[in-house]
Amino acid sequence: MNDTATLSRLFAGIQADLDEVDKVFQERARSGLPILNSASMHALSSPGKRLRTALTLLSGKLKVYRFEKLLPLSVAFEMVHLATLIHDDIVDGAHTRRGQPTVNALWGDHIAILLGDYYFAKTAGLIADIEDNRINHLFSDTVATVCEGTIMEMLSARRLDLTVQGYYEKISHKTACLIAACCKGGAILSEASDEEIQHLHEYGINLGIAFQIIDDVLDYTEDQTTIGKPAGNDLRQGLVTLPLIYALQSQPHNGHHQQVQLLLSGEGGSEEQIREIVEWVARGSGIERSFEDAYRYAARARKALYHFPPSSDRDVLDELIDFVVLRKR
Amino acid sequence: MNDTATLSRLFAGIQADLDEVDKVFQERARSGLPILNSASMHALSSPGKRLRTALTLLSGKLKVYRFEKLLPLSVAFEMVHLATLIHDDIVDGAHTRRGQPTVNALWGDHIAILLGDYYFAKTAGLIADIEDNRINHLFSDTVATVCEGTIMEMLSARRLDLTVQGYYEKISHKTACLIAACCKGGAILSEASDEEIQHLHEYGINLGIAFQIIDDVLDYTEDQTTIGKPAGNDLRQGLVTLPLIYALQSQPHNGHHQQVQLLLSGEGGSEEQIREIVEWVARGSGIERSFEDAYRYAARARKALYHFPPSSDRDVLDELIDFVVLRKR
Repeated sequence: MNDTATLSRLFAGIQADLDEVDKVFQERARSGLPILNSASMHALSSPGKRLRTALTLLSGKLKVYRFEKLLPLSVAFEMVHLATLIHDDIVDGAHTRRGQPTVNALWGDHIAILLGDYYFAKTAGLIADIEDNRINHLFSDTVATVCEGTIMEMLSARRLDLTVQGYYEKISHKTACLIAACCKGGAILSEASDEEIQHLHEYGINLGIAFQIIDDVLDYTEDQTTIGKPAGNDLRQGLVTLPLIYALQSQPHNGHHQQVQLLLSGEGGSEEQIREIVEWVARGSGIERSFEDAYRYAARARKALYHFPPSSDRDVLDELIDFVVLRKR
Repeated sequence: MNDTATLSRLFAGIQADLDEVDKVFQERARSGLPILNSASMHALSSPGKRLRTALTLLSGKLKVYRFEKLLPLSVAFEMVHLATLIHDDIVDGAHTRRGQPTVNALWGDHIAILLGDYYFAKTAGLIADIEDNRINHLFSDTVATVCEGTIMEMLSARRLDLTVQGYYEKISHKTACLIAACCKGGAILSEASDEEIQHLHEYGINLGIAFQIIDDVLDYTEDQTTIGKPAGNDLRQGLVTLPLIYALQSQPHNGHHQQVQLLLSGEGGSEEQIREIVEWVARGSGIERSFEDAYRYAARARKALYHFPPSSDRDVLDELIDFVVLRKR
């Protein structure tokens, strides 16, 4: 079963609500300015996994499901996620994402900056609609942390001395924090107890870390024909990720060390050099060690989940852990 | 009396509270990342007029003064204003602002994008502290409108067919909307009636429009020695403003029309060509007609204010109108 089919099956129970979130996103993203609408519709057309919305809704289902509150929260999380992707693509100078041209490639950096800002502004109104102060603070803290994570990523780019700990700090801020906030937000709005809210946050942060590790592994191992971006994309952008850190650790005196150093030094290597490093990492123990880490975080996510009584919604959250670790793209 | 002395006199009654707003801004802008703190402290060090904070506090003084609520609101408005300036400087490719190097000039566009985003995130937490849903929506709507205004400015750059109406739409969105929101927000938090809130909003929007017209006039007339940026800065950036629109209207068949067209066509003119156009506009009736417009908006601001009983705080709001129109920079 491929990834899309797996997600369709897992999300069958919330499909109608996922569609409603999409619809409201489009309504709330609307501006009086045609160029903003065009850029916005383009950014929205990219086939995302709707993972954040699903986590928000499913977390909200473990207690009292209040879709009228989860709806604006889900839209806000997807919108802020999209805003950060749009600004990331400027920072990374990326021209495509998932095989589609980016907003900055089509409309330029300046429209992309402003579309992201516009989304940030709009999320504030969505969050206000929820009328729960815990959500207001969760949202503000989360977005601030994601910004810090993006800066950590920038600062650690091209640095071969990035430690495993530094890597984890970076991905916790940049990726896992928002995924955890979706779960925590869903829990808050479902009238969960403080302890239950904490457990779902724990689930989310560990799931988020596993998610990012696998993303970084796939960048070295994925079949180039199945994905929009070519393998080795991180290396091409100077990003040092876990598979590379482990690969270098396992063979510190290997000739590839110097080759990677040269590649990251800013000059940028040829496509052939990049492919050579990608293949070296893909063949070595860095991939296996990264998978082991991902499994460990996945197990922690599962443990947090088992504080809740069995239910079909808990089962989906459980199966999502496997999906995150085993997906092929 | 110079501008700074005038403001010191006008703000004497709220000086302690203005200082407190500055202090809390610095506290709330703090991040765990040194580079973000450095960029933030630099952005903060620029000597702003604190006009937005003063308007928020003074509007909040006309009824019940609740500084504990006005404090986070003022910090949020100053912070979002700073965020938009930081992103504007990227969009404009500006290297200095008020004689200081910009964040993008010192740290690059990418840190500047993320510092702005970080500020947007932080404002959400400040607004949440106020716990008033009207403020949440005011804030979200205002920031979205400012983004739209910035895009209008981008789209109308280098366009000689920008109409007076188009100009007013642009500055209402980009500048006046935020100034009006400060006044409206102050009113909301001082337990003003719906009618009083509306009057203060009216005051703010008209004051804001007058403020921007004068800003645009000063860009043609100011003494270059008194200001960080050189005269003709708008023209240099391709921005078409009211003095130029009126100058072109008054002499439609003048040779300067074609010269401006060439200057704006994207090639960019020499400094000598820019100075020639600046002097032509400064000598002509465009300045006078712009002043007349500013006076008209100033009068509307004053009229809105006179729905409130006389008080020393109303006097300051009144004198601020004159300051905005008569200032020299």
